[in-house]
Amino acid sequence: MAAASRPEPCVFCEILAGRIESSQVYQDDFVVAFLDIRPLTRGHLLVVPREHAPDLEDLDDGLGARVFTVAHQLGRALRRSGLPCEGVNMFLADGVAAGQEVFHVHLHVIPRNPGDGFRLKAKWRAPGRDELDATAARVRRGLTAIPG
Amino acid sequence: MAAASRPEPCVFCEILAGRIESSQVYQDDFVVAFLDIRPLTRGHLLVVPREHAPDLEDLDDGLGARVFTVAHQLGRALRRSGLPCEGVNMFLADGVAAGQEVFHVHLHVIPRNPGDGFRLKAKWRAPGRDELDATAARVRRGLTAIPG
Repeated sequence: MAAASRPEPCVFCEILAGRIESSQVYQDDFVVAFLDIRPLTRGHLLVVPREHAPDLEDLDDGLGARVFTVAHQLGRALRRSGLPCEGVNMFLADGVAAGQEVFHVHLHVIPRNPGDGFRLKAKWRAPGRDELDATAARVRRGLTAIPG
Repeated sequence: MAAASRPEPCVFCEILAGRIESSQVYQDDFVVAFLDIRPLTRGHLLVVPREHAPDLEDLDDGLGARVFTVAHQLGRALRRSGLPCEGVNMFLADGVAAGQEVFHVHLHVIPRNPGDGFRLKAKWRAPGRDELDATAARVRRGLTAIPG
């Protein structure tokens, strides 16, 4: 965190404004999609709302839905693109702890193939029903705490 | 792949019908959300459309958008739940090659915290602009090949 007097320009806003080059695959009045320049696999796409929202907290509901709809269609497109694509992952990172690096909401759409080297590494658990129910109660309380 | 004469019942359809126990956090006429019984982290949720669609190809557009909207709100809810949640990942697997295990579309919503043991393992590349542009052209062709 540099003590800069001006915030750095958002790289996705710069792309949307045409000031940084990108390889676009889709654009409409609300959403743009282009290739990730550091792809996990060939054809790795980013779907980005035109309006700057750093994270899910600031993203308009309808705009989020629109981002997903475009990602949905791009997933179907990847399977028809001639690129190797036996499967598709969508991935979204919200917050530094989740791996977010660009603070303008974006949904990854990633072609998948056997042996492509991409996998999730995690410590899976198997909690009992009591813990699951207690956790669910907390999430339901969290839902009621969302303003508006 | 067993040569069974009857298809196995879909475990998510069984949950939605109440024939298999779950710890629900949200439900409406179109979408249900409950805890993953094998969570990556505490509070790991699955958002599932009521209508059975095995994959993105068969999922109605509007229903997909609705799934995302619910996941979006649940991500905000997790941050208000009192559960450890400094970040949120969304994840969707479409097809065996992408890690899909239950063939009823579902969107994962996963609370994240530093040191929680979850990470992506991948071989990142940095292709040149020529390759990116050629790949983008293929994806755009794939979009035009979607029926309807």
